[in-house]
Amino acid sequence: MSGAATNTNHDRAEALVHALPYIQRHRGKTMVVKYGGNAMINEELKAAVIQDVILMACAGIRTVLVHGGGPEIEAMLNAVGKESRFVRGLRYTDEETMEIVQMVLCGKVNKNITALIQQAGGRAIGLCGIDGAMLKARRIQGEDLGLVGEISGVDVSLLNSILDSGFVPVVSSVAYGLEEDMGRALNVNADTAAARIAAAMGAEKLLLMTDVRGILRDVQNPDSLIKAASRSELEDLKKNGVVSRGMIPKVDCCCLAMDGGVKKAHIIDGRLPHALLIELFTDEGIGTMIVQDGPSSAAAEDSV
Amino acid sequence: MSGAATNTNHDRAEALVHALPYIQRHRGKTMVVKYGGNAMINEELKAAVIQDVILMACAGIRTVLVHGGGPEIEAMLNAVGKESRFVRGLRYTDEETMEIVQMVLCGKVNKNITALIQQAGGRAIGLCGIDGAMLKARRIQGEDLGLVGEISGVDVSLLNSILDSGFVPVVSSVAYGLEEDMGRALNVNADTAAARIAAAMGAEKLLLMTDVRGILRDVQNPDSLIKAASRSELEDLKKNGVVSRGMIPKVDCCCLAMDGGVKKAHIIDGRLPHALLIELFTDEGIGTMIVQDGPSSAAAEDSV
Amino acid sequence: MSGAATNTNHDRAEALVHALPYIQRHRGKTMVVKYGGNAMINEELKAAVIQDVILMACAGIRTVLVHGGGPEIEAMLNAVGKESRFVRGLRYTDEETMEIVQMVLCGKVNKNITALIQQAGGRAIGLCGIDGAMLKARRIQGEDLGLVGEISGVDVSLLNSILDSGFVPVVSSVAYGLEEDMGRALNVNADTAAARIAAAMGAEKLLLMTDVRGILRDVQNPDSLIKAASRSELEDLKKNGVVSRGMIPKVDCCCLAMDGGVKKAHIIDGRLPHALLIELFTDEGIGTMIVQDGPSSAAAEDSV
Amino acid sequence: MSGAATNTNHDRAEALVHALPYIQRHRGKTMVVKYGGNAMINEELKAAVIQDVILMACAGIRTVLVHGGGPEIEAMLNAVGKESRFVRGLRYTDEETMEIVQMVLCGKVNKNITALIQQAGGRAIGLCGIDGAMLKARRIQGEDLGLVGEISGVDVSLLNSILDSGFVPVVSSVAYGLEEDMGRALNVNADTAAARIAAAMGAEKLLLMTDVRGILRDVQNPDSLIKAASRSELEDLKKNGVVSRGMIPKVDCCCLAMDGGVKKAHIIDGRLPHALLIELFTDEGIGTMIVQDGPSSAAAEDSV
Amino acid sequence: MSGAATNTNHDRAEALVHALPYIQRHRGKTMVVKYGGNAMINEELKAAVIQDVILMACAGIRTVLVHGGGPEIEAMLNAVGKESRFVRGLRYTDEETMEIVQMVLCGKVNKNITALIQQAGGRAIGLCGIDGAMLKARRIQGEDLGLVGEISGVDVSLLNSILDSGFVPVVSSVAYGLEEDMGRALNVNADTAAARIAAAMGAEKLLLMTDVRGILRDVQNPDSLIKAASRSELEDLKKNGVVSRGMIPKVDCCCLAMDGGVKKAHIIDGRLPHALLIELFTDEGIGTMIVQDGPSSAAAEDSV
Amino acid sequence: MSGAATNTNHDRAEALVHALPYIQRHRGKTMVVKYGGNAMINEELKAAVIQDVILMACAGIRTVLVHGGGPEIEAMLNAVGKESRFVRGLRYTDEETMEIVQMVLCGKVNKNITALIQQAGGRAIGLCGIDGAMLKARRIQGEDLGLVGEISGVDVSLLNSILDSGFVPVVSSVAYGLEEDMGRALNVNADTAAARIAAAMGAEKLLLMTDVRGILRDVQNPDSLIKAASRSELEDLKKNGVVSRGMIPKVDCCCLAMDGGVKKAHIIDGRLPHALLIELFTDEGIGTMIVQDGPSSAAAEDSV
Repeated sequence: MSGAATNTNHDRAEALVHALPYIQRHRGKTMVVKYGGNAMINEELKAAVIQDVILMACAGIRTVLVHGGGPEIEAMLNAVGKESRFVRGLRYTDEETMEIVQMVLCGKVNKNITALIQQAGGRAIGLCGIDGAMLKARRIQGEDLGLVGEISGVDVSLLNSILDSGFVPVVSSVAYGLEEDMGRALNVNADTAAARIAAAMGAEKLLLMTDVRGILRDVQNPDSLIKAASRSELEDLKKNGVVSRGMIPKVDCCCLAMDGGVKKAHIIDGRLPHALLIELFTDEGIGTMIVQDGPSSAAAEDSV
Repeated sequence: MSGAATNTNHDRAEALVHALPYIQRHRGKTMVVKYGGNAMINEELKAAVIQDVILMACAGIRTVLVHGGGPEIEAMLNAVGKESRFVRGLRYTDEETMEIVQMVLCGKVNKNITALIQQAGGRAIGLCGIDGAMLKARRIQGEDLGLVGEISGVDVSLLNSILDSGFVPVVSSVAYGLEEDMGRALNVNADTAAARIAAAMGAEKLLLMTDVRGILRDVQNPDSLIKAASRSELEDLKKNGVVSRGMIPKVDCCCLAMDGGVKKAHIIDGRLPHALLIELFTDEGIGTMIVQDGPSSAAAEDSV
Repeated sequence: MSGAATNTNHDRAEALVHALPYIQRHRGKTMVVKYGGNAMINEELKAAVIQDVILMACAGIRTVLVHGGGPEIEAMLNAVGKESRFVRGLRYTDEETMEIVQMVLCGKVNKNITALIQQAGGRAIGLCGIDGAMLKARRIQGEDLGLVGEISGVDVSLLNSILDSGFVPVVSSVAYGLEEDMGRALNVNADTAAARIAAAMGAEKLLLMTDVRGILRDVQNPDSLIKAASRSELEDLKKNGVVSRGMIPKVDCCCLAMDGGVKKAHIIDGRLPHALLIELFTDEGIGTMIVQDGPSSAAAEDSV
Repeated sequence: MSGAATNTNHDRAEALVHALPYIQRHRGKTMVVKYGGNAMINEELKAAVIQDVILMACAGIRTVLVHGGGPEIEAMLNAVGKESRFVRGLRYTDEETMEIVQMVLCGKVNKNITALIQQAGGRAIGLCGIDGAMLKARRIQGEDLGLVGEISGVDVSLLNSILDSGFVPVVSSVAYGLEEDMGRALNVNADTAAARIAAAMGAEKLLLMTDVRGILRDVQNPDSLIKAASRSELEDLKKNGVVSRGMIPKVDCCCLAMDGGVKKAHIIDGRLPHALLIELFTDEGIGTMIVQDGPSSAAAEDSV
Repeated sequence: MSGAATNTNHDRAEALVHALPYIQRHRGKTMVVKYGGNAMINEELKAAVIQDVILMACAGIRTVLVHGGGPEIEAMLNAVGKESRFVRGLRYTDEETMEIVQMVLCGKVNKNITALIQQAGGRAIGLCGIDGAMLKARRIQGEDLGLVGEISGVDVSLLNSILDSGFVPVVSSVAYGLEEDMGRALNVNADTAAARIAAAMGAEKLLLMTDVRGILRDVQNPDSLIKAASRSELEDLKKNGVVSRGMIPKVDCCCLAMDGGVKKAHIIDGRLPHALLIELFTDEGIGTMIVQDGPSSAAAEDSV
Repeated sequence: MSGAATNTNHDRAEALVHALPYIQRHRGKTMVVKYGGNAMINEELKAAVIQDVILMACAGIRTVLVHGGGPEIEAMLNAVGKESRFVRGLRYTDEETMEIVQMVLCGKVNKNITALIQQAGGRAIGLCGIDGAMLKARRIQGEDLGLVGEISGVDVSLLNSILDSGFVPVVSSVAYGLEEDMGRALNVNADTAAARIAAAMGAEKLLLMTDVRGILRDVQNPDSLIKAASRSELEDLKKNGVVSRGMIPKVDCCCLAMDGGVKKAHIIDGRLPHALLIELFTDEGIGTMIVQDGPSSAAAEDSV
């Protein structure tokens, strides 16, 4: 027990104490994490996210992990020599592609995340929208993109019973088709799936992991981060072009969650190790937090 | 309402009445079905098995469906141009192969069965041994076959809680590795997985679906079916060569289940539509039934 | 295993499969069966009803059996040499008669049905309206018919707790008196008791077993059966005389149930063996089904 | 509010306080009361027993009431002009007699007691051994007395679930036949039924209501009451003839209960109003108390 | 067993029977007793109150005991030589005084009552408003009286869970401070605490034990007791001076409870032994009962 | 968001991650903390202990806090001018002293700790051994020290139900007397109370907070700390005088816990802020850990 070690351990104790009010506040709340981007590729970041999720569960947060898996799908399509057809720049999901999507998301990515959580001492179950027909979808209307779905219903009873049993549900973005696709798998957007699940569960927070720092007032200037915005300010930011290009679907997804009753949505920089822990258990906000309109104490409430 | 139709419906009512004592007997019991062979390929047979499983669940049987998926794995390995290495005639499972096995079993076969059950009005959840580390395995000893595992532990709590919630668990034969493979997926034999699960759950029956009529006394003569045998008679049948070749692993698997406390094991002809229903809900036994040794009333008990 | 037997058993399996969608639809629903007429006298029909009721319970239908017992009461009154007094053609229930009614219904008929269900492998409990004061009644107003009651309240908690424990409640039509008859047994009409119980339980169906084919458009012509009618069409059928004589109280009873919120009422021909099974688990409707008014899909809904 | 009234009410309060330690001791214990004799005929005594039973339930005693009904059966047999056949002085129970027994016990006596409890503000359910096949019996061996049974099994789950729901189960001594009488009603002795039920429930006390003061050392001398005896002293009393004639079956019945694990059996004078309350809630013992052998503190324990 | 003793015990049984309808009526209701005055000082009265409270609990009344302890506080202040400062005739509670108040109420009076209940065979837990921050208070406004609080919130979940576990909660009138006194103990009036707890729990009755007979129409004439008054009559009695001096806060306290939804408030003469039992379990009302306004059957309802 | 701040918060996140395996290991375990010494006097240490206890509860540890309060008792005895009588150097607890002890421990110290936990955002309930007669004691034998007790029984049901409800039970060392002291408060040693509670609850750990570093091999040399010892090594340390003077009762207390089945006992330096957190959630052991004898992996087990 060297003096230095004592210091370190005392610092660690202080860090736990610092986290205490946040732990108390988040306890028993439901949070949906959309896991994606670099945090799903870089091994070190991956390990950090897994630890963060287990700590969230340990702190009594009802944590649901939702994921897609674009790069892995891409790789597999290449491996089988499947060439993609594009419709006005959007990939068309034919049956063969859908089969690959389903295999990669539900069979590889999903179970690998589940295994990582188990290995790190957590408890997890890997599911997709087909299980218990938990995510029901219809083919998107308008442009024909093949087996791409739009979520029309979320059955949260299965998720809640898994959470009650002490497991973290890991959910891949494959849905159960309705109508002319009754019983078929449909490809759905993972961000949207996370937002819809968060809304259906009455979640406290939707946490979208991205590869950017958050919404920047000036996309060239990383220091121009907007740390908080209300639901209606978001509309303004879209109108005046601050929210543009790749950020638009992320923001729309937050709006979807907010409109469904989720209290706060966070666009988080997943390239930062332990971004989830820092956001949730320290006095530092990470990325951009979106709050419901109204008595503006919402943002203040989030710091202790 | 023609007279003929009345007849038919009256006959149907009679069939239900005929099934009643079997329903009463099986109610609340646990049965593990190993689903495989032609019944998993032929569309008509597939639909029939799904209906049988849902009816079993409706009748109050705690039904677990375990499956492998050899042909689909084969096809996918071909699709990606993966050539197999063989060790004394057995396929070696290298990392790349294991990844394909996992994707096909957990992502494709498993979720497709789950979707079929949902579509037919049942409720199902697709899992593998990684979920909650439900099936724990170690690499098999002796011959080095790569990532092939031997099950060393089954945690039935997750299966029981899913059954309690009214879902049929559909389980693919991918296990969670221990020791030097900690947290990795290992390929396990699906028959063995079914037998181990049945034993761990204290199941009433293990039902192995095969592509043969059962154990034949004379393999050339389909009428020489052995309808029932005790655990110890099975040993004799193995010794004197009646059980040979492909039947040996099936029989070993039944023995594994019986030795683990399962009451009865059935080798069933999955090529017969509704073989499960006929076995369970009519006075006709299908295939070969293996019972525990001892007071020989066991076989008698199985008819009403 | 002869070919013929295989056929038969395969047919039986097909019958179960045919019943599956009906089983799925009725599962967890409450149904009240008014048991009476020939089905309570003829030994073969009796056995069939008992089997039907057990199968309903096995299929997860919350089944309540309500019965009267006119002929048995008649026989007992004769046995003790009791002469009946009539008031404008209706029998007057004096104290001595009521005592016989109570003994025969609660002591003989009720317990005999209960014993038959137990003997056939089901689980049943025999009750009457006195138990837990489950059926509360007041003397009917107007004509003085002695100890004849009109049900003024139904306490379903006892029935629900018995159903939750897995028993079929068998209920005889003797009620617990209120007001000037506080605590005395009152004779109530069994059809009405069934209707009131169905309404109080929010039942899916009331099934009235009768000795006719249903409502006939032309009472002379058995082929003129009205297979379905809405609640309001029933009023028309009464007004224009299609519903007449003995059918009037049956129809009134259905109306009572419908007005209390029961979804469907069925006037069923109890002379047909397994009429309940045919009605519930085949695509053939038995007798006349009465549905709530409104979007006319109700009748359609009842077929798969 | 006269001074006298105040006195009375203060005395009443004192009586409650006096009862307190007894209430505390009996709370949560199971007691089986065999109700019979004069207490079942005399209207005033009947009302007092009903009040006693309700008070026992209110004080948290799990109270089961078991009854026969000899005189009422006799009267009904006379009413229908049924002549009894006797076998060596014992009445032979033929089918017709059994039908009367069942009707009178299950239909009349049982439901009347149930109604009285409800009317006095308690909650009760009337049952017999047929319900849930709760009392299973075989024909007695030896002398052929027709449909007279010997109890071979008691299923207490139904009784316990009724007690848990806050009802007093009232049980008539008609059993469910096994073997050659499968499913038929058998006539069983009510004292024995009470003793068997008490044993099966692990009751604290069996309370047998009789028409005598208890066991008298000198049958001519009412002051020679034996207030307490151990199980083995009872044997001595039988051997030396102190226990004789009508007292023998009562004593045998107590022995049956004691040997089945019941802590204490009481032979109580049912001709005394509120004999149950006096026995249970005052410092006065009523009749003869039989205790298990062993450290003789048992009797002492029963006073506060 | 002398005749006299028999009489006495029969009388005791009659007293229990007399109490039965009251026991049935009060069963499961919540009642809050404010314990104070002579009943807390005189040893005989104290013992009687303890017995009454245990009997109330035994009869299934959810009983909460609230107490203050003026005389004991006074004695302790004298013992430590603390001189009180008065503000316009009211004692000022400085920090030192508050410390004494807390020690005496929570440490001495509260635990002594708890011990007495345990010793008399009951089960009790001693609490104060600090436990689980059950009683939250703010400093009273207006006159500065130091650490004197006004209750601003009552959390009944702890009390309910203690009642559910079968314990009597004994609550001393020390509250948990909010705002500038966050986390400090505040002195609150015990009558008010009882009234607020009764209101928060939706109690059936608040029973205030005092040292007077009740509200007297003529304070000089003990026979002028007002046995019942409605909430609005109480206002009139205050206006016309019938309620005066020391009775005013008692009456205000009853009004507070009534306005919070308590059904009845009783001002009871605690100098009468077993006043609680006489009020609750005999046909004699003790003191003054205050009922809600409206259909005047309220008073009548309280007698059987 | 300065870079420095990021560092700090990243460090904090790392500290949480470092704590994760410890949190996972301790989750759901029961730990009894004996709170005393400087940690109860120094305001900063006090605040740190409160935070530690809340964090332990947040991490899912079933935490019981046991305390004495010597200095506060001393101060109060002085305040009331009570002079102590000594018997061979031990203070004699007469009635007056016991009253002060009870008031100070149960009324002041206990409720103040409870208030501090509530104030810091935790949930706590203050109890003593009188509540539900949770700690039963008899006067110690041998030397007559007045109202000093020896614990003879611990009823853990109340503690468990409070823990199940999510509260931290804070327990003061006042017991409920038996035999000649039936119902009286007895003064018990707080260390012993903690040890007995830990044993009765089957606790994982007893954590004794002291004012020393632990057991020192050379009492003059603070670097000679014995970090771990088995139960039997402790005996040796006592025999050879390493454990001496004030350490003897601490060690005896650990032995008492170990012999009652507690897995580990820790003598902890309460002068170190957050000693509990450092011991439980870092890789640094604080003070001396005592483990059960046997396969020596016990100590190793405690590090991750």
